[in-house]
Amino acid sequence: MSKGNDKLVKEITARDEDFAQWYTDVCKKAELMDYTNAKGFIIYRPYGYAIWENIQEFLNHEFKKTGHQNVYFPLVIPESLFMKEAEHVEGFAPETAIVTIGGKEVLSERLIIRPTSEVLFCDHYSKIVSSYRDLPKKYNQWCSVVRWEKTTRPFLRGSEFLWQEGHTIHATEEEAREEVLGMLEIYKRLGSEVLAIPFVTGKKTEKEKFAGAMETYTTEALMHDNKALQSGTTHYFGTGFAEAFNITFQDKDKVLKPVHQTSWGASTRLIGAIIMVHGDDSGLVLPPYVAPTQVLIVPIQQQKDGVLEKSRELLASLESKGIRASIDDSDKSPGWKFAEAEMKGIPIRIEIGPRDLEQNHCVVVTRYNHEKTLISLDEVVSKIPSLFEKIHNAMYQVALDNVKNNTRPALTYDEFKEIIDQKGGYVKMMWCGDQACEDKIKEETSATSRCIPFEQEHLGDICPVCGKKAKMEVYFAKAY
Amino acid sequence: MSKGNDKLVKEITARDEDFAQWYTDVCKKAELMDYTNAKGFIIYRPYGYAIWENIQEFLNHEFKKTGHQNVYFPLVIPESLFMKEAEHVEGFAPETAIVTIGGKEVLSERLIIRPTSEVLFCDHYSKIVSSYRDLPKKYNQWCSVVRWEKTTRPFLRGSEFLWQEGHTIHATEEEAREEVLGMLEIYKRLGSEVLAIPFVTGKKTEKEKFAGAMETYTTEALMHDNKALQSGTTHYFGTGFAEAFNITFQDKDKVLKPVHQTSWGASTRLIGAIIMVHGDDSGLVLPPYVAPTQVLIVPIQQQKDGVLEKSRELLASLESKGIRASIDDSDKSPGWKFAEAEMKGIPIRIEIGPRDLEQNHCVVVTRYNHEKTLISLDEVVSKIPSLFEKIHNAMYQVALDNVKNNTRPALTYDEFKEIIDQKGGYVKMMWCGDQACEDKIKEETSATSRCIPFEQEHLGDICPVCGKKAKMEVYFAKAY
Repeated sequence: MSKGNDKLVKEITARDEDFAQWYTDVCKKAELMDYTNAKGFIIYRPYGYAIWENIQEFLNHEFKKTGHQNVYFPLVIPESLFMKEAEHVEGFAPETAIVTIGGKEVLSERLIIRPTSEVLFCDHYSKIVSSYRDLPKKYNQWCSVVRWEKTTRPFLRGSEFLWQEGHTIHATEEEAREEVLGMLEIYKRLGSEVLAIPFVTGKKTEKEKFAGAMETYTTEALMHDNKALQSGTTHYFGTGFAEAFNITFQDKDKVLKPVHQTSWGASTRLIGAIIMVHGDDSGLVLPPYVAPTQVLIVPIQQQKDGVLEKSRELLASLESKGIRASIDDSDKSPGWKFAEAEMKGIPIRIEIGPRDLEQNHCVVVTRYNHEKTLISLDEVVSKIPSLFEKIHNAMYQVALDNVKNNTRPALTYDEFKEIIDQKGGYVKMMWCGDQACEDKIKEETSATSRCIPFEQEHLGDICPVCGKKAKMEVYFAKAY
Repeated sequence: MSKGNDKLVKEITARDEDFAQWYTDVCKKAELMDYTNAKGFIIYRPYGYAIWENIQEFLNHEFKKTGHQNVYFPLVIPESLFMKEAEHVEGFAPETAIVTIGGKEVLSERLIIRPTSEVLFCDHYSKIVSSYRDLPKKYNQWCSVVRWEKTTRPFLRGSEFLWQEGHTIHATEEEAREEVLGMLEIYKRLGSEVLAIPFVTGKKTEKEKFAGAMETYTTEALMHDNKALQSGTTHYFGTGFAEAFNITFQDKDKVLKPVHQTSWGASTRLIGAIIMVHGDDSGLVLPPYVAPTQVLIVPIQQQKDGVLEKSRELLASLESKGIRASIDDSDKSPGWKFAEAEMKGIPIRIEIGPRDLEQNHCVVVTRYNHEKTLISLDEVVSKIPSLFEKIHNAMYQVALDNVKNNTRPALTYDEFKEIIDQKGGYVKMMWCGDQACEDKIKEETSATSRCIPFEQEHLGDICPVCGKKAKMEVYFAKAY
């Protein structure tokens, strides 16, 4: 028996017994990733990487449709360039990895492995832009970035992770602000249309925003353990970087102006979100539109006449409709194959045996609710797309209900502390706008402000923490 | 006027006057790349990156069709892991970049930025493989690698470059050898079907093979200046890495055996090959199947009734046929737009003016031969695909003729030196198999062995360099 399979049969930790252990069990046993000898640097195995490729496909399509172009900028940033924007440096310098040796020689200038690439894009933009005719520039890059993290977890927090980073410059503030909200909407649609994850969206507080940004917008997801996970974020920089890097253009009115800048990114954290929103005690549960294998055919008593033949015929029909289908015709037992398919979260399993053939039907099992249905072999292929839609919508609804059931208002700070401590989830509370109150909350409850939601609810007139006048409603939660 | 455009109008260096300068002019002025402050690290601008995306699309399709899976392995290799295979280390250690600081602390173990990822794949394979049932593993990754180069040139030799690296392990030597030749065939087809580049293929000599490989196979392209460029290469490792990393499996016969391993890679060097094989004095010339924009529509007197309308209608028709088309309806002059389209090597330009509209035709200009044809507006969309084919075949034929006309046999070493010195191109010569003769040739002529071609021609019985018995025919050339 192979090592991989040996590991698989061992049961994973129950989800509600030890969520953290359940999570790493699923990461490993669904063969999404593996560890390496370099701490925080993981291997994205084929199944995990294929999920990322499906996310990339949706985003690339949306990015290109909205006029963005892909580029690739260097892996390293000369230290002097990195130091050019003060807030940005302050935010990222503590967690950088630094190349000091190249070709056996100590480098005269140290090179920072990019933790994010704002300064590289700025430097380039300053060279290629001089007129309003050169604007906007809407670039995106797919790459990995390195941030030296003390505690790391697969997909959620790594020394290296994969992401896309969009960097755009515009002639006007209005256009840049549209970009920032437009890209946030694409992330939100990735959630609702592909990942079956309902994101709460809004603006970050000053304390939580991206280093160097004027404003940061976020998509926040709620995990099964009631902790929040910051997902895609978009940033409006105003003209701060433009002034530090001298990115100016002559406008139609002949006046030299700095550009208005944005950046936005989504990362392989999203894989972590998929696992923790949808997974269950049998392993991963993948929503159909992001699943590398959407349908797995398992022949039963495959040595019997016609079983393999019919199974392969069905496979070909599914594939011809653009469905990502696969067949497990190995010599493992059906029970084993079912367990593997469950662990990997394959949305639909189709079983075909000799008796099914006699009755011209097959057994269709949907992973998310373990429901079994008999469907005629003549109809099954045509019914799969609507079944995907049904599964996707149901999974989205379950996740949405979970958000609704776990978003609670707190009218007093005691109430806030009690909810955070006893129940978790989002707590909505009024806030005065002072960072001191955020700091106090974090220190005393370890919850952080997740966002200032776009749709503001008026829960009261004062900030329950300090008693001063409240300026806005904020979502708080413990978060990854 | 914008900076970008300012630069464009200046003529580029004539190709036959100073080929090296012409090359960098084209790289810059066709907006394929830009330099950065870190030596040898370039920016792949949108137009250059889009060429790479088209190469990726062909290769990804072929890789997946032949059962390969994409993965992502870490950017860094712990030094102790890197040191595990002696020949490999010897080959790559001198040109590595090394991370010595992470999170403000000096690392206890230095991390090598991957120059290639064999050792990472080996380490992982040793953990996940134990039975013949686990084989083969056929993984591929798209990433950048870092090799500290003293002299760098855009796309050809960089401190960082983009590539794909395939790493596979197999139960038998036969299967691994099939893989190595099969992937070489895919690279060759990339040349003949997409890049319009005829590759000479064959085996590398011991001296020129990949560090740690038993055998290296190569696709070699001939540039306009008659120098060769090594393109995609594939490597058979035998069981060398498997033994160093303990990648073993229990075979069907219950015997524990080491796996047979391969790797293969193609990089953004291919963009350099496209430039230097096809480019001319007006700039880049792109073969249609790799061109980011295949057809550019230039409206003439676009303010006149119906011109823009018809141009946009044509654009929509082309796009609906899956043709990568674009329109330049900016306020630049037509002459300017033509020059830009030429510089960027767009395969087909369509001009539509008021008179063309009257006569219901348009002017179709093919970039590679500057040929103008009048084509009926009713027929132009349906004719474009066959025109692509015609252009592709013609460009391939020109390149193939260039290879044929510049491949010469040398029966004596004097003749060899004269051809290398006076004419360049490939020189076919018999060889005894001793590295001493290769070393001598390199020292005296700066030519290197490019490959031992699969189709061997018998040019004589002795090695013209040393007079000993000849064992094989070899292609030599000066190379990038």
